[in-house]
Amino acid sequence: MMNDTEPSVKEKYLQNGERIDDLQRNGLYIIQDPGEFCFGMDAVLLSGFAAAHAPASCNRILDLCTGGGIIPLLLAAKTKARHITGIEIQQKAAGRADRSVRMNGLSDKIDIINGDIKEAPELMKAASFDMVTVNPPYFRTGHGIINPTDSKTVSRHEVACTLDDVLSAAEYALKNGGVFCMVHKPQRLADVICGMRDHHIEPKALKTVHPRIGDDPSMILIEGRKGAGEEIRIEAPLVIYNDKDEYTEEMYTIYGY
Amino acid sequence: MMNDTEPSVKEKYLQNGERIDDLQRNGLYIIQDPGEFCFGMDAVLLSGFAAAHAPASCNRILDLCTGGGIIPLLLAAKTKARHITGIEIQQKAAGRADRSVRMNGLSDKIDIINGDIKEAPELMKAASFDMVTVNPPYFRTGHGIINPTDSKTVSRHEVACTLDDVLSAAEYALKNGGVFCMVHKPQRLADVICGMRDHHIEPKALKTVHPRIGDDPSMILIEGRKGAGEEIRIEAPLVIYNDKDEYTEEMYTIYGY
Repeated sequence: MMNDTEPSVKEKYLQNGERIDDLQRNGLYIIQDPGEFCFGMDAVLLSGFAAAHAPASCNRILDLCTGGGIIPLLLAAKTKARHITGIEIQQKAAGRADRSVRMNGLSDKIDIINGDIKEAPELMKAASFDMVTVNPPYFRTGHGIINPTDSKTVSRHEVACTLDDVLSAAEYALKNGGVFCMVHKPQRLADVICGMRDHHIEPKALKTVHPRIGDDPSMILIEGRKGAGEEIRIEAPLVIYNDKDEYTEEMYTIYGY
Repeated sequence: MMNDTEPSVKEKYLQNGERIDDLQRNGLYIIQDPGEFCFGMDAVLLSGFAAAHAPASCNRILDLCTGGGIIPLLLAAKTKARHITGIEIQQKAAGRADRSVRMNGLSDKIDIINGDIKEAPELMKAASFDMVTVNPPYFRTGHGIINPTDSKTVSRHEVACTLDDVLSAAEYALKNGGVFCMVHKPQRLADVICGMRDHHIEPKALKTVHPRIGDDPSMILIEGRKGAGEEIRIEAPLVIYNDKDEYTEEMYTIYGY
């Protein structure tokens, strides 16, 4: 039997212009296309935050806007979830995600759906997931989008789905009491919190991520629970770099950098 | 003419059991009753936050739930406001606030109203303030309040007014574009943000206050603007103590400790 973790074997999963990146975690690799959207630190921090906030019994996870599948791959390594589904509207990104899953030998554990989260009721069963994660497009449209069909635009701007679409899909897919984890931009905090409440996902934990001590945050990580009571915990901030420009200890221990 | 800043002269403003505390700011003093609610660091930080976020032209400020008048006194020192109104439902606290204003020779600048913020339309003109500040009761009722008429209970729990009452009064009193500044508990963040939006006060800035680096915040400071567009700035956290258990530099420079 072939061992798909051998580099030479991995290359059969590659298409034109793509490369294989080492995730430095459990021997995992991911296929990326340098000409399209590549995952960033936000996705890695979300996976660490989601792992820390996963419910005790977390059998099934859904990752919305999964892109090239970075979050399902990392959650397969960081949680005890039995099954993870990733959904992505862009055909090329979904294809890369699917090939990355197969290349890592995770086809039994991760499914990639190439579909639109706005059609979640046609694609999956209601209230069937213990956790939903999402690294959504951050920016509102209408600020002069040059090329609305460009892959990077779709990944960053609310062209193909809005925050409300993301929260609708999460509300539909989550079991009552299920956990929702999202990374977003600080300037969207009020939209995120009010939107979650509108969709009966009560905000339960917020963590701000700051490049250095004394900086405004560059990201927020937020956890909510479907149908839960009020009261949120604001956690101690996560600081990325210390004064020597090295990752802080929390970045190593919690987030696995 | 008598000089009301002389200690011996000040004592004529005191009633049984009360004391005079030095605010260490512009020669200001405040009358407090050690048996009743005394102001804390939250009020002082709110005044510094409000001064930093005051609109350029800030003629009239309203302080809701003013208690013994700490916020109007500090804002008289820290801002260029021409006039400040404090409103307090508890007769004894309002009386102390009024005597503190007179004792400091600030009767021309600060008015104290002994009244209920739920009756704001009978007590003041709509849309007549440039800024509204509030250090409200933090805790929901219904967690077994022992003595609902006790002064400390009224100051800490939503017995006499709820967050929604506070935001209703602020919405009523603020000019369009006027600034709202509040200190609250971190666990109420979602209530605060969604409540502000419900009352057309868009959250524009959030600052978390942490006892030490690495601690969860113990307070939040939030600024909103009536009728403003979406997008909030999350500011760098305020840390109270450094690793030598001294106040941090920001506590000295911005907040005047």
